Amino acid sequence: MAISTDQQAEIEAARQEHQQTRRATVPALEEILFQPLTVLDHGFVRVIDYMGDDDAIVQAARVSYGRGTKQARDDAGLIRYLMRHRHTTPFEMCEIKYHIKLPIFVARQWIRHRTANVNEYSARYSILDKEYYIPAAEHLGAQSTANRQGRAAVVSGEEAARVLTILREDSERCYAHYQEMLNSDESGAMLDPNRSGLARELARMNLTLNTYTQWYWKIDLYNLLHFLSLRADPHAQYEIRVYAEAMLETVARWVPLAHGAFRDYRMGGVHLSSGGLAIVRRLLAGEAVMQSESGLSPREWRELMAALGRDA
Amino acid sequence: MAISTDQQAEIEAARQEHQQTRRATVPALEEILFQPLTVLDHGFVRVIDYMGDDDAIVQAARVSYGRGTKQARDDAGLIRYLMRHRHTTPFEMCEIKYHIKLPIFVARQWIRHRTANVNEYSARYSILDKEYYIPAAEHLGAQSTANRQGRAAVVSGEEAARVLTILREDSERCYAHYQEMLNSDESGAMLDPNRSGLARELARMNLTLNTYTQWYWKIDLYNLLHFLSLRADPHAQYEIRVYAEAMLETVARWVPLAHGAFRDYRMGGVHLSSGGLAIVRRLLAGEAVMQSESGLSPREWRELMAALGRDA
Amino acid sequence: MAISTDQQAEIEAARQEHQQTRRATVPALEEILFQPLTVLDHGFVRVIDYMGDDDAIVQAARVSYGRGTKQARDDAGLIRYLMRHRHTTPFEMCEIKYHIKLPIFVARQWIRHRTANVNEYSARYSILDKEYYIPAAEHLGAQSTANRQGRAAVVSGEEAARVLTILREDSERCYAHYQEMLNSDESGAMLDPNRSGLARELARMNLTLNTYTQWYWKIDLYNLLHFLSLRADPHAQYEIRVYAEAMLETVARWVPLAHGAFRDYRMGGVHLSSGGLAIVRRLLAGEAVMQSESGLSPREWRELMAALGRDA
Amino acid sequence: MAISTDQQAEIEAARQEHQQTRRATVPALEEILFQPLTVLDHGFVRVIDYMGDDDAIVQAARVSYGRGTKQARDDAGLIRYLMRHRHTTPFEMCEIKYHIKLPIFVARQWIRHRTANVNEYSARYSILDKEYYIPAAEHLGAQSTANRQGRAAVVSGEEAARVLTILREDSERCYAHYQEMLNSDESGAMLDPNRSGLARELARMNLTLNTYTQWYWKIDLYNLLHFLSLRADPHAQYEIRVYAEAMLETVARWVPLAHGAFRDYRMGGVHLSSGGLAIVRRLLAGEAVMQSESGLSPREWRELMAALGRDA
Repeated sequence: MAISTDQQAEIEAARQEHQQTRRATVPALEEILFQPLTVLDHGFVRVIDYMGDDDAIVQAARVSYGRGTKQARDDAGLIRYLMRHRHTTPFEMCEIKYHIKLPIFVARQWIRHRTANVNEYSARYSILDKEYYIPAAEHLGAQSTANRQGRAAVVSGEEAARVLTILREDSERCYAHYQEMLNSDESGAMLDPNRSGLARELARMNLTLNTYTQWYWKIDLYNLLHFLSLRADPHAQYEIRVYAEAMLETVARWVPLAHGAFRDYRMGGVHLSSGGLAIVRRLLAGEAVMQSESGLSPREWRELMAALGRDA
Repeated sequence: MAISTDQQAEIEAARQEHQQTRRATVPALEEILFQPLTVLDHGFVRVIDYMGDDDAIVQAARVSYGRGTKQARDDAGLIRYLMRHRHTTPFEMCEIKYHIKLPIFVARQWIRHRTANVNEYSARYSILDKEYYIPAAEHLGAQSTANRQGRAAVVSGEEAARVLTILREDSERCYAHYQEMLNSDESGAMLDPNRSGLARELARMNLTLNTYTQWYWKIDLYNLLHFLSLRADPHAQYEIRVYAEAMLETVARWVPLAHGAFRDYRMGGVHLSSGGLAIVRRLLAGEAVMQSESGLSPREWRELMAALGRDA
Repeated sequence: MAISTDQQAEIEAARQEHQQTRRATVPALEEILFQPLTVLDHGFVRVIDYMGDDDAIVQAARVSYGRGTKQARDDAGLIRYLMRHRHTTPFEMCEIKYHIKLPIFVARQWIRHRTANVNEYSARYSILDKEYYIPAAEHLGAQSTANRQGRAAVVSGEEAARVLTILREDSERCYAHYQEMLNSDESGAMLDPNRSGLARELARMNLTLNTYTQWYWKIDLYNLLHFLSLRADPHAQYEIRVYAEAMLETVARWVPLAHGAFRDYRMGGVHLSSGGLAIVRRLLAGEAVMQSESGLSPREWRELMAALGRDA
Repeated sequence: MAISTDQQAEIEAARQEHQQTRRATVPALEEILFQPLTVLDHGFVRVIDYMGDDDAIVQAARVSYGRGTKQARDDAGLIRYLMRHRHTTPFEMCEIKYHIKLPIFVARQWIRHRTANVNEYSARYSILDKEYYIPAAEHLGAQSTANRQGRAAVVSGEEAARVLTILREDSERCYAHYQEMLNSDESGAMLDPNRSGLARELARMNLTLNTYTQWYWKIDLYNLLHFLSLRADPHAQYEIRVYAEAMLETVARWVPLAHGAFRDYRMGGVHLSSGGLAIVRRLLAGEAVMQSESGLSPREWRELMAALGRDA
């Protein structure tokens, strides 16, 4: 379970409080503020705070004195124009803060995005919860042979059962040994008065990479969309993609116009190289083009034909 | 005048609107939200939006589920500890957005701080206002001979009068020529139907560096405090220091505990080098120490004695 | 003239010195090291230092122990793959440092790219050279009416002559007044012993935005290519585009494989939105598509047809 | 063993090659270029490339055309001045690139410094080496009770033996299961033709946090010194501090003047708060000051007295 009863009570208490503000406010996002959205078996994403809305993008692009126009049609057009032409700075004027619980191996991918502010729960200072990620059977992908970074068909039968046993037992044992070395249980109570207990900063090294950690993560909208374009992509690892998908839903509530433009111009789009564009032009002119004389490598050719919905 | 009547009306309209929010809210900052604080002759700083408060720093440092403790004493102690030991990431969890009007030569110093988000009013796209900075007589510092980056006594009499005449006439003439080249007045109306008018992106190059520009500027609290520690410092140029001082007042309203810790540990403090520390220890031991055998250069010695309030 | 005789002698002296190194070295770039490439009337770009080469990209992508493969074919393929799939971090492993002289209004656009290291010649500390940009007659574009940020046909005849007169006279006069207020000539010699001279940090505000400044600018290859993709683009202002073009030539010497991939996948390419891609697919299927039922706005439609080389 | 025979051969081959260059070159650093400096039981740091030297700092600070003065005395003074007054940008003009092998739990601390370029060995794409960190007996610190983030006296006797057994056995078992799930040995050879093998991106989650990873890490001198000031500090965890110490030696070879200034002004220095400074002034005036009336908290008081070398 991602959230304990005490934590749920704290969250509920925070949700009960309402304040008056002059700031731009988004009721659809306020609705889910502080609430954990469940991801994987013990993880979550919850929105802790936000700054700005769709209007704030328009307002910054125009460096205006008031709240921006009330002509919603113009605002939508401007936001789509900014997204299409990669005018990034107005999107940087919105900011969002998440509290996220995630397996360490996912956190290691995630942290590579350097344009966010992060406060992680410290395993030097505190004892990590006894929670580790065990994949659902349908996500036990075999190693792809076509793509060195990807998964192929799902591992099944005895092999799958063995994998799940290994993951469960090793996680369990490593965590038990972590407590033994700490000489402390999860609550911090001493186990054996005759032992001094290893420093937390050392004992943690025995934990497996599927152990959950958590952090506060704050980012502006432009960099968030860049993160989501990479991590909600079908080529991203499933275990980070599900976080990206949960966050995309929060973006849809927060800045629906920017979210729509992002879907149209970033997520669903495709980049054509100069060579690829030349081939599209030739095809449109009715010419038959073959890979062998296309100037593209076989791999690029396959990627282009896939994008155009044609047989390679 | 920094703000036109129309702009003031837009600001007032925005100030009338209030929303309900679950987010951390700071009444003392809400009071002045959107209102321009006048700086120099035509400039201003106004807070457009903010995220977080003192509690949010504590909450992030603890990666907590709720709003942080209600034991205000503990929170103050933690914030002071974080500031003293340069734990910077919790301060990054608060964010503020300003709308600022400032002379271009000040903007050029300011933009060197790279950790902010900026949307500047575009002189490629729009026509700049007819506003330029003319220093008050008491700020016409002469070139310091002791410090190549500083000002000495104020220039006065005929020399000062001549300086002010030059600045006024050149600004005025260059702006008039800007309009003539644009073939357009400030409102964008064409001046002479027989001329095509130079592109805005070219005509702007005739403006002087005291012309005012404006931008939206958004930054997290940690980087804001770093900016303010440099720009509210007595060694900073007066024309940027007055902006930093106005912003410090907004910080005092926004996050009073962090502001207090910043005043104590950053603004009023001093850094001792290993050599300087060794001398302080010797002095405390009752030893007489002379510059010549201190291991410090004459300049470092003077700086240290000044910090300690002793004659060099 | 961009470079004085003394400066040219210093550059030549530096070019005479050769050292032995174990580092990756690029003879084609060494050839022009330190030499100014002239840009605009008084500006220049010169490469001061560099780190890495095409091999270094490959080496970092593979986290290898040696110099990377000697199979040049594989390296080219890998670099093209990395560029195509936006694997950006290996390109960050190369670094280059330029010394650039440029008009202040160009510097103001340039500095918006925040991912570089910059040391600018300080007008608080030093006296700026008497050099200002005056456009060549063929670059005096009129304001475009179709594109608020662009230029149309060239201003000509009397209007052009008047523009050039204004620019020359105002630059000249403002600079002369700058010296008068400083009470100093370009060499720093005092003009009038009876005046104290205004502080440099103040006097500079009388200069026009076409005055030249200079800086050291250091950046990694990934961020450089991003900068160049924006600033070598036909929509960029001419006065910054010529700098980007000069720098592209240095990139071609430095990392020819990365440069080739950049030309193919970034400069000459086009991004299709999901709507645009759908239309391309319909066109390829032989369907006639009209803007009115395309789901694209008239402006997007025109942009798409232009990219595809078709009449809108 | 950190480096295999093949890897050592690749390194030696790279070390044999010498090129001519016009760039600033540092013989003392060239001497150790590419060579691994051993850290912990299987880790290393090796310098792969560098840009600039002490002169380059001076050259950038002066925006000069040549190589900087040959008056070494002036250069040292300028570098010390820049370090003392936190003029950071000239130090950003030097860049260094390391190849580092380190335990994952150390990598997780390290990556929090966001101002570097990183390429990490990918466990999605490749199989990690069978190497994990086991602390030497003298580094098995017990949890400190005074400092929640620190270590106290060393755990010894049976408790120590048990800790080492746990760490060895769990690392060994988890790695063996990693290979079993992959259905692959370290070389990539299949173990059992009847199993498909779990995707590498999943199997890795079973590894413990003391498993070694490796990366290329590139950073400018300013940010490197900031990193080292935090990580070579006595409060840093031992396992990252030894890396910082090895890197400090490479800095001493590379930029001896900057290194000396860093030692004097950063590493050995102390920051006094405004309250601390007031107390130092009172003590110097011969006044007896007690904590109770000092205005400092007991903890701050102890820290100050320790810095001044006095009993608290």
